[in-house]
Amino acid sequence: MTDDAEALPGNASDARPVRLAPLAGTPDRGPTLADLSEGQVLARLFPRLPAAADQLVGPGDDAAVLRAPDGRYVVTTDMMVHGPDFRLAWSRPHDIGWKAAATNLSDIAAMGASPTALVVAIAAPPATPVTVLEGIADGLRDCCAALAPGCGVVGGDLSASDTLTLAVTAFGDLGGRAPVLRSGARPGEMVAVAGELGPAGQGLALLFRLAVGPDGEPDARLADALRQMHPDLVAAQLAPVPPVALGPVAALAGATAMLDLSDGLAIDAGRIARASGVGIDFDGASLGERPELALGGGEDHGLLATFPEHASLPDGFRRIGTVIAQPGEVRVDGVIHDQAGWDPYRGWDGAAG
Amino acid sequence: MTDDAEALPGNASDARPVRLAPLAGTPDRGPTLADLSEGQVLARLFPRLPAAADQLVGPGDDAAVLRAPDGRYVVTTDMMVHGPDFRLAWSRPHDIGWKAAATNLSDIAAMGASPTALVVAIAAPPATPVTVLEGIADGLRDCCAALAPGCGVVGGDLSASDTLTLAVTAFGDLGGRAPVLRSGARPGEMVAVAGELGPAGQGLALLFRLAVGPDGEPDARLADALRQMHPDLVAAQLAPVPPVALGPVAALAGATAMLDLSDGLAIDAGRIARASGVGIDFDGASLGERPELALGGGEDHGLLATFPEHASLPDGFRRIGTVIAQPGEVRVDGVIHDQAGWDPYRGWDGAAG
Repeated sequence: MTDDAEALPGNASDARPVRLAPLAGTPDRGPTLADLSEGQVLARLFPRLPAAADQLVGPGDDAAVLRAPDGRYVVTTDMMVHGPDFRLAWSRPHDIGWKAAATNLSDIAAMGASPTALVVAIAAPPATPVTVLEGIADGLRDCCAALAPGCGVVGGDLSASDTLTLAVTAFGDLGGRAPVLRSGARPGEMVAVAGELGPAGQGLALLFRLAVGPDGEPDARLADALRQMHPDLVAAQLAPVPPVALGPVAALAGATAMLDLSDGLAIDAGRIARASGVGIDFDGASLGERPELALGGGEDHGLLATFPEHASLPDGFRRIGTVIAQPGEVRVDGVIHDQAGWDPYRGWDGAAG
Repeated sequence: MTDDAEALPGNASDARPVRLAPLAGTPDRGPTLADLSEGQVLARLFPRLPAAADQLVGPGDDAAVLRAPDGRYVVTTDMMVHGPDFRLAWSRPHDIGWKAAATNLSDIAAMGASPTALVVAIAAPPATPVTVLEGIADGLRDCCAALAPGCGVVGGDLSASDTLTLAVTAFGDLGGRAPVLRSGARPGEMVAVAGELGPAGQGLALLFRLAVGPDGEPDARLADALRQMHPDLVAAQLAPVPPVALGPVAALAGATAMLDLSDGLAIDAGRIARASGVGIDFDGASLGERPELALGGGEDHGLLATFPEHASLPDGFRRIGTVIAQPGEVRVDGVIHDQAGWDPYRGWDGAAG
């Protein structure tokens, strides 16, 4: 989420456990989780989920067993919570599953690794239609197929909660290479990015401005109308397409530092700067017509990387700056840039729908 | 959780976001998550968490990197949700962290593997005192140190949510052995168990009976009094001590099937029976004075395993039955036993505190 989350209006309704209506693009019909046994729900979900090429033991036992061909494995975990991280009035179930997978796959790619598998824990209100979980499963599947073929879901957990919550843990393989950390950038190197800068934040800003009803609540019909008007910006926010395959490509091309752009270019560049003990100076002209959107917009999930001065940048990366000596500094055309950013707790209204 | 969850009384209060008071054994003081930045919270948590012996890259980058000495790794994930899985009026923060680690470590052990690392995602209301997360971190640390020395926390995620939620993913190493699945039991083999049968369910039943106030809500002071009267039963429920080290020991001793006892002996034996295409006949006299507590009590987190007929059972395991030919059947002294059990959605009242 970005700073825009702070503008989120409170949800006047306090009725429980109805948190799910209205669902974007999903007629609220068919059985709910409360109507079926856990086994019946899982029997509807598992066939929708892809197996992992590297799995030796898949879902159904106490744990899964995965191959680690190079003797190491990469691990990341990320939780998505209804309210601060997504709204069912805006995100279709498919979007939710897609984004939960995409953000984790992007973290694996940012180490220079190829994603191999996911485990997925979901907690949902008993009143949730089973079709919502099926949609989430389809989104997980389609995202893996599109961004990391061979990556599959090897295990999971299903719980009851007032708050729809997904926790995805993703695994990756380094193919014998060293991981690309945040700490390897050196002065004089190139700063490059893969993926667009700004559209996810713009999409979120539009949703907050144009897809909230007069009662202050996220509105599914307004969100649908917004999708028609700005399909790319809304999709960038609700179902991002990070350049996952470029993570290993960047590693092979000699990337010295890399991270997943989750909180905006300025904040994330500051992370590389601090971890590496260097500064980063962006070329303002390379940041598009409105550099502030590129610098401040969160959740783009592109890859920010540094490469040796004379390296040949791989296709998909473009140069946007230079590593400088000043530790921890982020500059634009030589001028120091504020790295202030969002925080998941500050200003968050827990009651907001 | 067990069937007893269905007896849970509703929480009359509907005020938000106050879900945390009263806290068992934790004075509600000091800064909350909303008072600190995410970075400040993490700076208080990370030093409390143990490093993993197998970690090559720990917390702080996009992902962690772990050694997989035998070219494979074992993975399990489990979510704990405030409400259906624990109550802050009953569980101390240390208990919550301990149990979240213990249940996952037990799943790793049930594959015959040694736990190596955890990643932990936590979502909490902004009004949560930071001391609650510190207590959870201490519980995670102490459980790893006690049950799986060398196992550490290599990554995590911190989110905002109305509902305090922990998602732990655990990893393990098989040490060159084949994983012990649920599907390997054969007629004529011994059925054995490590760990006590029944106390966790008894502890939960006592909490529901004696630690709920006249208003129908879980009560911290009554829970403290109950801890004084029945320390072992309450601890078995709130902070179980699964025989994690016996997982690899059982594998080395030739265990043909094994699982973590989470839903009661009868239900879990049925899982081995169905996966292996066999039946299981328990010796009623070996199940204690009240066999129904052993058969029906959930969350004991012992290890149920089958061993070849003439195997020498390792210390810590005791024989409680025999594998029979009848597929999917669970019997006690030859009489078919009902495997009906709890379901996380049925009868769960989402509003209950």
